[in-house]
Amino acid sequence: MRIGIIGLGLIGGSLALALRAAPRAGETLWAVDLDPATRADALDANAVDAAYASLDEAPLEQADLLFLCLHPEACAALLARIAPRLKPGAVVTDVCGVKQSVMQAAREALPEQVSFIGGHPMAGKEKGGFAHATPTLFHRAHYLLTPAPGAPEQAVALLRDVALRIGCADVVRTTPEAHDLHIAYTSQMMHVLALAICEQSPFDTSRGYEGGSFRGATRVAALDASLWTELFWDNRALLADLVGELAEKLKEYEALLRGEDREALSARLRATAAKKEAWDRAERGRSGR
Amino acid sequence: MRIGIIGLGLIGGSLALALRAAPRAGETLWAVDLDPATRADALDANAVDAAYASLDEAPLEQADLLFLCLHPEACAALLARIAPRLKPGAVVTDVCGVKQSVMQAAREALPEQVSFIGGHPMAGKEKGGFAHATPTLFHRAHYLLTPAPGAPEQAVALLRDVALRIGCADVVRTTPEAHDLHIAYTSQMMHVLALAICEQSPFDTSRGYEGGSFRGATRVAALDASLWTELFWDNRALLADLVGELAEKLKEYEALLRGEDREALSARLRATAAKKEAWDRAERGRSGR
Repeated sequence: MRIGIIGLGLIGGSLALALRAAPRAGETLWAVDLDPATRADALDANAVDAAYASLDEAPLEQADLLFLCLHPEACAALLARIAPRLKPGAVVTDVCGVKQSVMQAAREALPEQVSFIGGHPMAGKEKGGFAHATPTLFHRAHYLLTPAPGAPEQAVALLRDVALRIGCADVVRTTPEAHDLHIAYTSQMMHVLALAICEQSPFDTSRGYEGGSFRGATRVAALDASLWTELFWDNRALLADLVGELAEKLKEYEALLRGEDREALSARLRATAAKKEAWDRAERGRSGR
Repeated sequence: MRIGIIGLGLIGGSLALALRAAPRAGETLWAVDLDPATRADALDANAVDAAYASLDEAPLEQADLLFLCLHPEACAALLARIAPRLKPGAVVTDVCGVKQSVMQAAREALPEQVSFIGGHPMAGKEKGGFAHATPTLFHRAHYLLTPAPGAPEQAVALLRDVALRIGCADVVRTTPEAHDLHIAYTSQMMHVLALAICEQSPFDTSRGYEGGSFRGATRVAALDASLWTELFWDNRALLADLVGELAEKLKEYEALLRGEDREALSARLRATAAKKEAWDRAERGRSGR
């Protein structure tokens, strides 16, 4: 098996390190990265067998499995460039946090004999780049897969095998539409929220008063603005609806707090806490924790 | 030193366990708890030297340091009951997440010779009770102190010593007013937010799509509704303002996402991410991480 990774940033780099931490006989792993220091670091860490400075130098023609570890717009643009050089039977996947646009770009660019399996390992950090890559980045994360219509099951199985090998909790197979809706909620909206909290009036004076809930809700605010602008913009209709819905829920809480009906507030807390407890119980059952 | 703890729930129980994990010669520790099973468990765990079923049985008269580990309203009501039995020079503290109301109750109830130091160790869990208590609960947490006006420095020093002994990161001395404002933001609003997120339309179908940001922002939604209704209600004017402010910020993001100006969205992400990065850098410097 010959695996290629385009882009040795946090995700691509962690993927390489994780694959090497669980090696398979006869597997070779190469990468392309524009940054000379990243290539040197990756070779030093034995994360790859070879590191190329450009696509032209890379043995794309021999790749059995190709990971595109770039931001969504670069990923979509790259597909057209690599398409003519891929061998029949090659499996191509990406790691983007949006799926409809990338799947469409793949549909338009790739020949029929190449299988595209959209991928989204739900792992990350506030700091990007190979310097922050770690073989344990994917541990216990969901790996979401959106196979192109007609993609062979063996291509899906190949990705599933990689996901479990690098330590993911499970593989969740879904459609690009369901992916983008749910990710707008579970991921993108959480980033909008973290930003909005950090823009509030007490932020600058609140150091020393923060506990676990504040750290948990604001951790992702120190985001890569370029990446997240792409992700938000690509999915902006769904995201705007959810951000608006959340604002309305908060307005309802504001009204309860300004009202006189303490029991109404209490009843709402009981109902929602019970809902979240049920979720947590199901999650513990699922993960065996 | 004779220490009494009223209430062996999550906080009182963890406090007892943490004090026993870092023992001091000649120190005795007793507790009052209404629940027979809790008293038995605490004695079995050697968390206390004695456990009493009622205040009447407890040697309040000899206590040098008394921790009231009850919810705010019960804590305020208790102060009047214990006041006549406290010895001159005794130090009394609480662990409530609101401070103005508790400080006022202490001011009204306690004699001049007893020092009240409001306390708020910023640690918790979604599950309460002695069964979930742990000696490491306070590790790396801030311990907020709001001494009553005129409280002697040696009483503050006593609490500071306890805070560091049980593993807190630091002691933050503040006023009840500043406490309640900042806690409305860093803690109470995060709980409102976690609830509001779990009330949104995709919640029930989003299992399998959640990552660290979702877990971090919603963890506290499985809250103790009775406790948090008290905390929200006690601080409702400040909390309503902040929840309203957050809703407005979200509406601004919604408008950016529905608009056509991608660069405006990107600029806002850059500015806020930079602000949060600066916070994180300062925090790493402060904690030596």
